[in-house]
Amino acid sequence: MLSHHRTCKPAEMATLMEDEVFMAFTTYAAIVIVKMLLMAPMTAYYRMTRGAFANEEDVALKPEEERKKLLRTHPDVERVRRCHQNDLESVVPFVMVGLLYALTGPELSTALLHFRVFAGSRIFHTISYVGALPQPSRALSWVAGMLVTFSMTYRVLSTVLLL
Amino acid sequence: MLSHHRTCKPAEMATLMEDEVFMAFTTYAAIVIVKMLLMAPMTAYYRMTRGAFANEEDVALKPEEERKKLLRTHPDVERVRRCHQNDLESVVPFVMVGLLYALTGPELSTALLHFRVFAGSRIFHTISYVGALPQPSRALSWVAGMLVTFSMTYRVLSTVLLL
Amino acid sequence: MLSHHRTCKPAEMATLMEDEVFMAFTTYAAIVIVKMLLMAPMTAYYRMTRGAFANEEDVALKPEEERKKLLRTHPDVERVRRCHQNDLESVVPFVMVGLLYALTGPELSTALLHFRVFAGSRIFHTISYVGALPQPSRALSWVAGMLVTFSMTYRVLSTVLLL
Repeated sequence: MLSHHRTCKPAEMATLMEDEVFMAFTTYAAIVIVKMLLMAPMTAYYRMTRGAFANEEDVALKPEEERKKLLRTHPDVERVRRCHQNDLESVVPFVMVGLLYALTGPELSTALLHFRVFAGSRIFHTISYVGALPQPSRALSWVAGMLVTFSMTYRVLSTVLLL
Repeated sequence: MLSHHRTCKPAEMATLMEDEVFMAFTTYAAIVIVKMLLMAPMTAYYRMTRGAFANEEDVALKPEEERKKLLRTHPDVERVRRCHQNDLESVVPFVMVGLLYALTGPELSTALLHFRVFAGSRIFHTISYVGALPQPSRALSWVAGMLVTFSMTYRVLSTVLLL
Repeated sequence: MLSHHRTCKPAEMATLMEDEVFMAFTTYAAIVIVKMLLMAPMTAYYRMTRGAFANEEDVALKPEEERKKLLRTHPDVERVRRCHQNDLESVVPFVMVGLLYALTGPELSTALLHFRVFAGSRIFHTISYVGALPQPSRALSWVAGMLVTFSMTYRVLSTVLLL
């Protein structure tokens, strides 16, 4: 029994990462998380080029007469921040539901369809938002991502419901 | 050994979703994530009925003299957005800690108590917030959710501490 | 086979929490999530001591002539809120990527280095932000956390890539 346990243990740790659906989930989760993380340096870039900061210590090295003027909001910075916020509201639920979805053992092709549509929709959402493309480009890309997450949630709840 | 591995692997993928505590966690996590996701269409509804938008491209189809007026904040929209933000700050940590908590193998009845109190508290929190119910209704529902998350974190850290 | 399954199942549930890397991840994830959660009571503390509230129902018990004055923003409250927001943008991705990273089976010492640097960087980030320490203290602590998350993401994608 002990030797059984010893053999089973490493097999099990590796198993999740040997399952193709879980590997696909891991890949696309990493991609959309990286996309979300890149919004922070993008905000920093817009803050610096537009000269719009939020904290006094961030402008301490500027000439004293400029400092007050730099502590302001700028439409371009606010736009990037709204895009980042939308990522938090959309990407984080996708990753959390997606993990549970992957564990319900869906078909690989079905799972890949969900993950690819989501990743594509979020990349297009960022382009639409930061580029201020005419609507409904941003709205549709947002809806596509939501539909993926709701579809995965439906699968999760219809497979595993214990109230 | 090879055939052992082959039998163990699918069993293992299925195992998490066969464990009752994990199934209960999955169910309640899905419920509170869906509740959180619904805040986005609710914000959109308030933006449209109150006529308060954040992006120029969102009002491009309106008559030109109205556009500037529609790019504004509205107390009802800001209220829904604060509620959504509170979900991000509360529901996301619950799901992340809850997953680890479920893996520590608590009693099903104890786990269900945690999950049910949390889900109930967050639904009541949303009603209190969006409906602007008199305090301390919103404060108490928020505290109940926090206590659940801290209780699960305590169990996690007292079971699995490796610094 | 049935008895095999019965033995394998509890072993498996326990296995993740017996793996040292996963235990270390669990410990540090719990620590940084608790740190993030504590930003909410800190915000409440600043709101009360600075007299700056966001909701009418939160000031309903104050004398009527004071109420309007208390519904305002205050720089100290906004500072704590920005710090909380930065936690959402940094800690949540760390926990999600860290879970996948732990499942790729890294060396314990490497994993611990990642987790410790991240936890330290976020604690120092909060001190720098709330204390308004001179830059680049906040910037550097933020960068250190980002580098950890990107390093873990690199390991995840180079181990498990299924597009």
